[in-house]
Amino acid sequence: MNQNYIIADNWKIIEEGFDVSRVESSESIFSIANGAMGQRANFEEDYSGQTLQGSYIGGVYYPDKTKVGWWKNGYPEYFAKVLNAPNWIGIQIRIENEILDLNNCPKITDFRRELNMKNGVLKRSFTAIMKNKIEILVSSTRFLSIDDDEIGAIKYEITPLNQNARISCIPFLDGGIKNKDSNWDEKFWKINSLSSLNQSAFLEAETYKTKFKICSYMNNDFFIDEKKQNLAYKEIKDDCKIAHHYDFNIQKKSTLKIIKIGGYISTIRNTKKTVEIAKKKISISSKLGFEGLLKLQINAWSKIWDISDIKIDGDIKAQQAIRFNIFQLNQTYSGKHADLNIGPKGFTGEKYGGSTYWDTEAYCLPFYLATKPKSVAKNLLQYRYNHLQKAIDNAIKLGFENGAALYPMVTMNGEECHNEWEITFEEIHRNGAIAYAIYNYQKYTGDKSYLKEKGIFVLIAISKFWLQRFNFSEQKKKYVLLGVTGPNEYENNINNNFYTNYIAKWCIEYTLQTLNSIKNNDQKDYKKIIDKSVLTKSEVEKLHSMKDLIYLPFSKKYNVYLQQDDFLEKDIYPASKIDKKDLPINQNWSWDRILRSPFIKQADTLQTFYFFEDHFSKKELKLHYDFYEPLTVHESSLSPCIHSVLAASLGKVDDAYKFYLRTSRLDLDDYNKEVKEGLHITSMAGTWISIVEGFAGMRVKENNLFFAPKIPKKWKSYTFNILFREQILRVSISQSSTTFQVDGKNSMDLYVNNKEYVIKPNSELKIANILV
Amino acid sequence: MNQNYIIADNWKIIEEGFDVSRVESSESIFSIANGAMGQRANFEEDYSGQTLQGSYIGGVYYPDKTKVGWWKNGYPEYFAKVLNAPNWIGIQIRIENEILDLNNCPKITDFRRELNMKNGVLKRSFTAIMKNKIEILVSSTRFLSIDDDEIGAIKYEITPLNQNARISCIPFLDGGIKNKDSNWDEKFWKINSLSSLNQSAFLEAETYKTKFKICSYMNNDFFIDEKKQNLAYKEIKDDCKIAHHYDFNIQKKSTLKIIKIGGYISTIRNTKKTVEIAKKKISISSKLGFEGLLKLQINAWSKIWDISDIKIDGDIKAQQAIRFNIFQLNQTYSGKHADLNIGPKGFTGEKYGGSTYWDTEAYCLPFYLATKPKSVAKNLLQYRYNHLQKAIDNAIKLGFENGAALYPMVTMNGEECHNEWEITFEEIHRNGAIAYAIYNYQKYTGDKSYLKEKGIFVLIAISKFWLQRFNFSEQKKKYVLLGVTGPNEYENNINNNFYTNYIAKWCIEYTLQTLNSIKNNDQKDYKKIIDKSVLTKSEVEKLHSMKDLIYLPFSKKYNVYLQQDDFLEKDIYPASKIDKKDLPINQNWSWDRILRSPFIKQADTLQTFYFFEDHFSKKELKLHYDFYEPLTVHESSLSPCIHSVLAASLGKVDDAYKFYLRTSRLDLDDYNKEVKEGLHITSMAGTWISIVEGFAGMRVKENNLFFAPKIPKKWKSYTFNILFREQILRVSISQSSTTFQVDGKNSMDLYVNNKEYVIKPNSELKIANILV
Repeated sequence: MNQNYIIADNWKIIEEGFDVSRVESSESIFSIANGAMGQRANFEEDYSGQTLQGSYIGGVYYPDKTKVGWWKNGYPEYFAKVLNAPNWIGIQIRIENEILDLNNCPKITDFRRELNMKNGVLKRSFTAIMKNKIEILVSSTRFLSIDDDEIGAIKYEITPLNQNARISCIPFLDGGIKNKDSNWDEKFWKINSLSSLNQSAFLEAETYKTKFKICSYMNNDFFIDEKKQNLAYKEIKDDCKIAHHYDFNIQKKSTLKIIKIGGYISTIRNTKKTVEIAKKKISISSKLGFEGLLKLQINAWSKIWDISDIKIDGDIKAQQAIRFNIFQLNQTYSGKHADLNIGPKGFTGEKYGGSTYWDTEAYCLPFYLATKPKSVAKNLLQYRYNHLQKAIDNAIKLGFENGAALYPMVTMNGEECHNEWEITFEEIHRNGAIAYAIYNYQKYTGDKSYLKEKGIFVLIAISKFWLQRFNFSEQKKKYVLLGVTGPNEYENNINNNFYTNYIAKWCIEYTLQTLNSIKNNDQKDYKKIIDKSVLTKSEVEKLHSMKDLIYLPFSKKYNVYLQQDDFLEKDIYPASKIDKKDLPINQNWSWDRILRSPFIKQADTLQTFYFFEDHFSKKELKLHYDFYEPLTVHESSLSPCIHSVLAASLGKVDDAYKFYLRTSRLDLDDYNKEVKEGLHITSMAGTWISIVEGFAGMRVKENNLFFAPKIPKKWKSYTFNILFREQILRVSISQSSTTFQVDGKNSMDLYVNNKEYVIKPNSELKIANILV
Repeated sequence: MNQNYIIADNWKIIEEGFDVSRVESSESIFSIANGAMGQRANFEEDYSGQTLQGSYIGGVYYPDKTKVGWWKNGYPEYFAKVLNAPNWIGIQIRIENEILDLNNCPKITDFRRELNMKNGVLKRSFTAIMKNKIEILVSSTRFLSIDDDEIGAIKYEITPLNQNARISCIPFLDGGIKNKDSNWDEKFWKINSLSSLNQSAFLEAETYKTKFKICSYMNNDFFIDEKKQNLAYKEIKDDCKIAHHYDFNIQKKSTLKIIKIGGYISTIRNTKKTVEIAKKKISISSKLGFEGLLKLQINAWSKIWDISDIKIDGDIKAQQAIRFNIFQLNQTYSGKHADLNIGPKGFTGEKYGGSTYWDTEAYCLPFYLATKPKSVAKNLLQYRYNHLQKAIDNAIKLGFENGAALYPMVTMNGEECHNEWEITFEEIHRNGAIAYAIYNYQKYTGDKSYLKEKGIFVLIAISKFWLQRFNFSEQKKKYVLLGVTGPNEYENNINNNFYTNYIAKWCIEYTLQTLNSIKNNDQKDYKKIIDKSVLTKSEVEKLHSMKDLIYLPFSKKYNVYLQQDDFLEKDIYPASKIDKKDLPINQNWSWDRILRSPFIKQADTLQTFYFFEDHFSKKELKLHYDFYEPLTVHESSLSPCIHSVLAASLGKVDDAYKFYLRTSRLDLDDYNKEVKEGLHITSMAGTWISIVEGFAGMRVKENNLFFAPKIPKKWKSYTFNILFREQILRVSISQSSTTFQVDGKNSMDLYVNNKEYVIKPNSELKIANILV
């Protein structure tokens, strides 16, 4: 059974009632972040029950020594892991000397969590009767500032309800933290100093090996019934923790309020004087106060929502889900920092190391392209450009040469981290997605400068890789790619994965075409590029001849391209025939059985139809969809969105809706029973794609937006906004018609169901939907 | 460069001169064992330099928790490892209070080790000047009794050469030992008790988890210039070690001699009263004395050599090598205990866990069949029969049913230990070798009872596995085996590995044929077998139809069977073109590159020609040999022997000799630079095969021995003995002729170069060789 405890609401994620078995899941779901740091919804006060403590700083990682059963030459030495960082949110509370700990309270009532996605504020409140019979009301409000991404703020209030009480408040900074997923149980942090100054404290720490230095800081102000308190504290210190101990006598029904400001200053984006910078952050925060910071937060989120919101009328669970997805994407990646990227779990857990996968290019880019200034998407491209040399080094490790690049499957700093030969060495299609993102960016933004200045070097290095990776089959008289793993990781070490061969072929064509256009425009630029990337004439010639001789497996019997050479050798039957108790097969079948089965983890051949829609006819799409969809088990969170877009494009709105539901509430309803480990951030972009590219049918072709609006039966209407060429297009689709509106100064050409329209600025265009 | 320090000798392995860099290698090479326990050639006295301490007890293992990078469903939880056992050989020596330690002696001269293979006695002697300037002569003689495999004996002598000296002798038993290859650095042994009685001491220990209980014991007698000493000692004990401290004043040039008797009594083959049994062993040993025990040892080895020796005249290095190989095989497996098997490293190291591989059935069985009473080979078959239920459980784990069995790739107690999906789940041809061994045993011995009583159940369970593992390819209209790894582990997850498909087809045929013959002989027996193995009528029918429709990949262009479906898709060029610096490729190329290369680790398609020689014509053999041999890199120690046999069969004696050399001195000359980790025991049987089945061309066909004698140019003659149907055939092959002689009561039919001869008992048959 899926979980079903999140209360539906248009803007909020709500949990009511305290249940120890839900604590870890809620810690993930109620996570907050601001693109630079993140925090699981751990309690401020003590909690002795099951919990995954998690505070994360973007870009701070540790090279954890690789763990394998059997070493294969070419494996990386290290897996760069996002680190659980020193805890700055902690406040120990003692009521008449009894530590407040929800795992030990005889009675808890009115427990409620509420994450307001409109402004990124997490609230929690409860009434508890403690073992010492004292009844207290607790309320906490917390956010990480989007406006200044090195500041976080907590308002923590306690009211004794049934008697006067002596309350000790012990806010702290704790560097004695660990990673649950550490390979060898090593310590990742070295604590350099712990110090106090007035109401503030500072913890200076540095990561072993990577030597990232950070200062975690806190400042605490106290109020009783809104009256500020100025009293002394006792400093408590050990090797890795600093705390300030305050004692208060609180009258029955009076409220003690703590305002704790804190966060991280790291040397990644600052000078070494991290403590000095922390002091400035405290001074700014003090001037603004909690309410002032909150105002900035509300304002910042309001700007984000203005463009990225999707409104769904008539389906409150769908509404909550899509906003949750958009909210998390914005929490994870702000686009401000070119060294950061979008980890599959964002700042919500340790698993998958918070590293970068091909998910970014293949699934996330469209969302950021359409809802953020182009600098944000450009930062994502730039990230890979900056890692080009490391991708070349990675290829050298495997035996490639002459500047061929294989981008890593998983990375934090450009180096490959993954260590499973069938993935690390063989899932090489990732190179294709990275090239595709460059193409996608240019197509969407119209900005050609990136391609010429940086993108072309990435394309050349990737094409060099394909050049060496293909070999000529004497039997087929074609170039073949042997020993690969496609997006469908349920087949390994196969030959001629259609998707991989196709995207490789496209890569080569796009590289040659780009080179040609640069050459035609400016011979000098061309020469510079050729020289810098050491691209020889014979390489160019071989690329030219290779591109037309790339083998693409095809079945005449079924009239479809084959996922791989030997796909039809399998015993093929539809996924609907799998015994329900065997699902998901990745939890219930041996790897041996999965590999030999015809079942597909995620869009593979169909991914080609998503990326290269225009290369195929609708009839071809239908043939492939009808062949592969029934075999797909969607056991990757990245699968249903692609199927949703293709289904919508084929007019199968019910199917598209079914797929949409499978991703949109994946985490809220915990379909995979693993939300406690963190959220599926990258697949959240897929939910957005399902709506905008799926139901609304948005495409960009030759500098224009195209739409083919459709709407699920259950919805009254849905509305979204698209930032396109510096103007905002607002789109609202009801059961009968679609309304477009442009925020901007220029009129906009657009195509609806392939018919051209022009919208004037600040005017509305209403077009009747075509029924499917 | 290969090592080259072992001095050539017909019967002895000799090392002269002390070199710290050779200590670990020599510890392996000079290992001694008696089929039940084994001991690396560690020094009795202290040694602070690089050393791999190793004392092993057959059948005592520990389930070490599996270590993997990425877990796959179906992996075993544990890897059963052979354990480094409590050390019983240790004797600390102090000369005027300075500990004797060869790593700390200013001068060492006349260091010499000598392993006399004729009687399994290891001697070591040296003269050392210690830091305190005292010069001593030390000599140690050690053996593990073949006669009573729970007894070991050491004679340790010290003579001060330049002054009188106070010498402390501290023999001990030490349970504070570890495995170097432990996955998680866990302790494997719990020490239960340490006690002394008179000159003896006892250490009772038990393994964690597996709860094997053992008693390690020692008894020490002292002599000065052969005069027995009776004096008191001080007992020293800590948590895991017990020692007896003796002090002596030894005159210059007088000799102190210690006779230390010790070994292990385990509950595997004894009652729980292990200490009582140890006391009995001590009492027996004391009565016999060191010299008495040695006499029994010489006698026991002489019996072994009488049958298993191979004499080579004219090539002392080859002579030393073949005796070393035969010696090690006999040390490793005596055939006395059905729970033991032949670990790839025997009792000489920890690596590969001392477990059982398909090596036993595919490479070792012929040696034991031809040199031991048939009960020994039968014990090897019995071992797998006893593990049948675990093989069925292993298959269930992977999704098979109805009593299908998949024997483990690596095992100690029948459970699969290996955890690499491409091997564990896919290298399923091992099932074939286990069936082949049953066939081979029956063919060689003529004993049909085993097959009917036990073997048939193994065959049925294996055939059930093939029945479910093949699937019908609609394209090929044949049964295919998808996703396998053949003996060539340089290709993984391929389709239709010729060797695997062929042996599977043969298995099914052999099973059906055996069932048929049982049915024709005795319907009641047949019924019992069918019932016990739950073999249904429809399974039998499907096996019948399947066997004729098994796909065997074949190339019309080259007229050869293909190693796998897509072998010809590769870029194929001969191994001779690999840059020398890239060899061995498994150390110098990435796994990615190896997998895509056409290079073959060990006989794969050619293994089929070895097992099923009679199924193919000489012309076919030649075509396949000429196609595959140039692609084979022989990076498995199991490869050259098969090629040697096939080359000899094709009349290519020079090639055969080249391959013979590659295995015979593999460890003595440390070709793979890894001898320090232990010896390659199972491949040693391959050396024997190269001579007997290769050069001498011995085969068994229809209850007769066949020979086709050849001889390498370098040899004057070679002689070996074959135990066949209770008689010993002595074969001597010179450059010109071959002489046969039978020890026994009956005359023997035999075929030489396909011509029939009859030899009378105790007479000689001399036949001129056919020149090739």
